[in-house]
Amino acid sequence: MPKILAINAGSSSLKFQLLDMPSEKVITKGIIERIGLGDSLFTMEVSGEKLKETTNIPEHETAVKLLLDKLTSTGAITSLNEISGIGHRVVHGGEEFSDSALINEDVLRKIEELSELAPLHNPANITGILAFQRVLPDVPAVAVFDTAFHQTMPESSFLYSLPYDYYKTYGIRKYGFHGTSHKYVSRRAAELLGRPVEQLRLLSCHLGNGASIAAIDRGKSLDTSMGFTPLAGVTMGTRSGNIDPALIPFIMEKTGMSADEVLEVLNKKSGMLGVSGFSSDLRDIETQAAEGNPRAELALEVFAGRIHKYIGSYSARMSGVDAIIFTAGIGENSEAIRARVLKGLEFMGVYWDPALNKVRGQEAFINYPYSPVKVMVIPTNEEVMIARDVMRLGNIQ
Amino acid sequence: MPKILAINAGSSSLKFQLLDMPSEKVITKGIIERIGLGDSLFTMEVSGEKLKETTNIPEHETAVKLLLDKLTSTGAITSLNEISGIGHRVVHGGEEFSDSALINEDVLRKIEELSELAPLHNPANITGILAFQRVLPDVPAVAVFDTAFHQTMPESSFLYSLPYDYYKTYGIRKYGFHGTSHKYVSRRAAELLGRPVEQLRLLSCHLGNGASIAAIDRGKSLDTSMGFTPLAGVTMGTRSGNIDPALIPFIMEKTGMSADEVLEVLNKKSGMLGVSGFSSDLRDIETQAAEGNPRAELALEVFAGRIHKYIGSYSARMSGVDAIIFTAGIGENSEAIRARVLKGLEFMGVYWDPALNKVRGQEAFINYPYSPVKVMVIPTNEEVMIARDVMRLGNIQ
Repeated sequence: MPKILAINAGSSSLKFQLLDMPSEKVITKGIIERIGLGDSLFTMEVSGEKLKETTNIPEHETAVKLLLDKLTSTGAITSLNEISGIGHRVVHGGEEFSDSALINEDVLRKIEELSELAPLHNPANITGILAFQRVLPDVPAVAVFDTAFHQTMPESSFLYSLPYDYYKTYGIRKYGFHGTSHKYVSRRAAELLGRPVEQLRLLSCHLGNGASIAAIDRGKSLDTSMGFTPLAGVTMGTRSGNIDPALIPFIMEKTGMSADEVLEVLNKKSGMLGVSGFSSDLRDIETQAAEGNPRAELALEVFAGRIHKYIGSYSARMSGVDAIIFTAGIGENSEAIRARVLKGLEFMGVYWDPALNKVRGQEAFINYPYSPVKVMVIPTNEEVMIARDVMRLGNIQ
Repeated sequence: MPKILAINAGSSSLKFQLLDMPSEKVITKGIIERIGLGDSLFTMEVSGEKLKETTNIPEHETAVKLLLDKLTSTGAITSLNEISGIGHRVVHGGEEFSDSALINEDVLRKIEELSELAPLHNPANITGILAFQRVLPDVPAVAVFDTAFHQTMPESSFLYSLPYDYYKTYGIRKYGFHGTSHKYVSRRAAELLGRPVEQLRLLSCHLGNGASIAAIDRGKSLDTSMGFTPLAGVTMGTRSGNIDPALIPFIMEKTGMSADEVLEVLNKKSGMLGVSGFSSDLRDIETQAAEGNPRAELALEVFAGRIHKYIGSYSARMSGVDAIIFTAGIGENSEAIRARVLKGLEFMGVYWDPALNKVRGQEAFINYPYSPVKVMVIPTNEEVMIARDVMRLGNIQ
């Protein structure tokens, strides 16, 4: 049976998952951290235990070699020949990629060109791709883009109300992110609903450190809350989501910061961290809110409130909705956030059961049986989507 | 019967309306333009005709004197004593003013302090107030704030997901605008519905050159689309509405513009003008769209689409809505925009009648009789609201 590696390379990290296909079973997974920073950390699950090793990994190629060594030495694979394909998560596919792509020189060049739109992410993703190319040159590799699923958005969804030239000249438009996750949960929702995805209007709430909402109309992304970058949309752990754009010059003037410094604040010191004043971690905030901290309570209200409004917004966008899906860390695990988000949606046919809503981290319907709109918790699985695309585009049997 | 002047002073203009109270009949109205710019233009309605005069008006005090001369000479009033009160539209009342205020030194000082939040508007409004104070020092004057109605918004609505200090230190929050208009149409809607406004959830769409949507829950503003400034929210004539905030540094870098220059583009060259590429005037755009211009069609789609999504959003915010109101130039007159905005909202109980939707510029219900959600066209009347507040706060009988 083919084994597929799903890779997510950051500038100093390499996340991996080895899947057996087509069973989609996870053989092992782990992460290599602090690459090039000294005291690099290798973590991998081996028969239910976490193997941890601190070592020195100067760059990604060494990380890849170490990973392959460990995969063989722990028995996850018996030889490198068992790795039939590699899938790389790539953040930005721009308008070039509306699907995953088998990596060749042309694809790699395009991903490089798109670094302009994702200066932090695409170069790191490329580093990962090149490292594997050097170590396993003959294994087919596929790039799976965070933006690709949203390329079906019509111009009326993706265009900003800016001078039209900005779109044509600079590529300024809404791209959307978390596409692999939104696609996965929409397909899984259709299976669980026993209906073809082409007949469904789905509203997917990917709520993690980053958070985005997608309106998925008959299988295709029709609109999504993130924008040109992953800063836009709802309140997140440390990201502001949408604000009045006039605030940037105002904050610059008041604080003396540069535009880039303000952007850094919007990305790193805003969101639930900014509102609560103490944490970007929902669990900390929920604990503090329960203990009566009013700013923690406010952070929960703001976070859930923004998502709640998007649900109304995207329901209007699709002229109604068949199911609402919660996924990712917060979406899968936070009963309290789901309850706040869903409160008061009866007018549009959402009737949910507080008892069923207690579920954590597993697939479940949490609506009352009679609810016209179904509400589902579906743990996301981007790695499976990556592995499927490697199988399909690598033509692996 | 008392006569009240409702004044809207801009940096080089003075709009006026003289109302007979409490009948609320308009005696005359007009505008003085190009104050201090040479070739000043005085326009006033006299018995159905437009009186126009070009003259030189160096500053607002001269404009006020000319206005009062004309009111007497045309017989609109027989003596200045008939003017019982003056109401001044003031754009920004910050958190200081949750209601209109009888102008005294303290109020005037606060309006001046709030110029920081509305550097273009409040100083012009003050110029108008001072000009009338000098010419009619004994006539009570009332400031009516665009922001006041929205001061009922809870913190979860008005707070941005930014570092909390920004709110406390710099007053960075959502204020909202068009408050006088939203308040007027919500009260009028309640009258037309024959129900107390305290029992209604109303969604008010003020669609003019500027456009904002308000969720008015039991008479109080609960949320609104404009923000810290009138730039935020939906697409407008020349304003972008919400965009990914990360675009400002990106546009600065690409074009070499400063943050203030980008802001100027967002305010003056974006919106329907930016998308269509040729006009900010909806009538031009509708004409071109009918002739097959795809960018005109796109501008209509984008404009209406953003409003459509706010209707869903704010319906969720209020857990449903009793009536949707359209007002201001576009809202009162554009059948096509209303049709696009309302399309596909049956899932939330909105059933509207295309035949009734042909109405222009007059009060009307445009929903089918059986529609759970009513849809209304209500011409706005900010001047009546101003006059009413002058009567109330000036204690005029």
